[in-house]
Amino acid sequence: MTHRSVFVVSGGTGITAEAIGNSMLSQFGDVAFTQHSLTYIRTEDDCRQAVARIQAAAEQDGTRPVVFSTLVNPTHRELLNQSGALVLDLFGTFLQPLEAELGVRSSQKVGYSHAVRDPSAYRVRIDAVHFALDNDDGGRTHHYDKADIILIGVSRSGKTPTSLYLALQFGLYAANYPLTEEDFDDLRLPEALQPYRDKLFALVIDPERLTVIRQERMAGSRYASLQQCEQETRTFAAIIGRYNVPSINVTERSIEEISTRILAQTGLQRRIR
Amino acid sequence: MTHRSVFVVSGGTGITAEAIGNSMLSQFGDVAFTQHSLTYIRTEDDCRQAVARIQAAAEQDGTRPVVFSTLVNPTHRELLNQSGALVLDLFGTFLQPLEAELGVRSSQKVGYSHAVRDPSAYRVRIDAVHFALDNDDGGRTHHYDKADIILIGVSRSGKTPTSLYLALQFGLYAANYPLTEEDFDDLRLPEALQPYRDKLFALVIDPERLTVIRQERMAGSRYASLQQCEQETRTFAAIIGRYNVPSINVTERSIEEISTRILAQTGLQRRIR
Repeated sequence: MTHRSVFVVSGGTGITAEAIGNSMLSQFGDVAFTQHSLTYIRTEDDCRQAVARIQAAAEQDGTRPVVFSTLVNPTHRELLNQSGALVLDLFGTFLQPLEAELGVRSSQKVGYSHAVRDPSAYRVRIDAVHFALDNDDGGRTHHYDKADIILIGVSRSGKTPTSLYLALQFGLYAANYPLTEEDFDDLRLPEALQPYRDKLFALVIDPERLTVIRQERMAGSRYASLQQCEQETRTFAAIIGRYNVPSINVTERSIEEISTRILAQTGLQRRIR
Repeated sequence: MTHRSVFVVSGGTGITAEAIGNSMLSQFGDVAFTQHSLTYIRTEDDCRQAVARIQAAAEQDGTRPVVFSTLVNPTHRELLNQSGALVLDLFGTFLQPLEAELGVRSSQKVGYSHAVRDPSAYRVRIDAVHFALDNDDGGRTHHYDKADIILIGVSRSGKTPTSLYLALQFGLYAANYPLTEEDFDDLRLPEALQPYRDKLFALVIDPERLTVIRQERMAGSRYASLQQCEQETRTFAAIIGRYNVPSINVTERSIEEISTRILAQTGLQRRIR
């Protein structure tokens, strides 16, 4: 297996460069990559140190490192280009066609999305996180009028992480409520949820996956048994079917995918970008 | 102000394409962008529908839309390129130079980072979120031996959202503990924290910002007064100085920036990528 050093170089957190880097590198299963992050590159001096680290890796490996860069500053980009590495300039490559298309020059400053820099977006986000925490797991139900969405599901179907992701990433007020055995007797939605039926969204999970997750937490318990998981998921399906609650099957999906699909399905507008 | 329609087109969540799109568009302050997400484009049919939506916007606007695409499938990319929009092909543009450099062909499948698809990474992440919740706000302290990091700070300095972000994004076990007036009398760290001094990390906030945040929550209270905020932040600074606790000033920083800087400063290794 061949080996390559990979550097993510950014004037900020490096999260964007890393995401696109990971996605591209996953295309090359036969190469072993060693990944390094060089973030908050703000000065020419930072830049020269980054280049020195890249060149040291090149010397040690005997091969050219691969660099994913989101540097914005033209001088910094130029310095990086002289490193001798394969520099994939995510920002610079598209800036010129974009300027040409829009007919205006760019500000060439480090750019952030609103979610990251706008103080009012910051507040929305923090408030949303606290809302998710306060309204987690059915603990409180008297603030549901403020909720953008109320996730329902059986225990360990991923309600809490999804609520938190919706809050952190999109600034949405997401409550969640577990449906438990007591709710299953009469196939009715719990009283607390009845007035908010139009805010409900169901997380559905396959019993085979649910039992694995529950076993990790309470091995050998009735709660974790396949039989119990089958019964709960079957009854849950009947309830959401009866009330026409929109749903997503979370079994094979990441939190990102669940959350973005919920947005797409519900048409909910994110509060931050 | 000129106006442009912008489309984020992705075979997955669109999060990466959106991040780079937001960052590039923020360079053009004089253009009003209307943003659309076309995500989970998985089939040629999905692709044709996306192209139709882009072309409809072009017709309505009378200008070419801008498209940020992370489509991987070559046929889909080709279809998108024929839309007539300015297509910034984030994936395709760098694939060829990368293949040439590595001397291997890519698999051309939709790529995901480990964090997103690997089931064991999924579990780490969920466990980390539950750890952050269980160990939030000093509520429990007897699991600190399992913590990767324990964030300390005055009330409303951003400990909870930062802990959750560290959990969701990096799979880290992050506890947090508020330092309150009772802890300030003798300038000592609370007993519960003493055995874990090497795991502590302090979130420092300017009193002027803190009072604004607290006013939003409890307007007119002593808790929110500038005087109180000044006293708490001053005493907090004295305590972390005395115990040499590493720190970051969070005042002007996003949660992403705080979290990634904590990683860089502590050298903590993320559990998921």
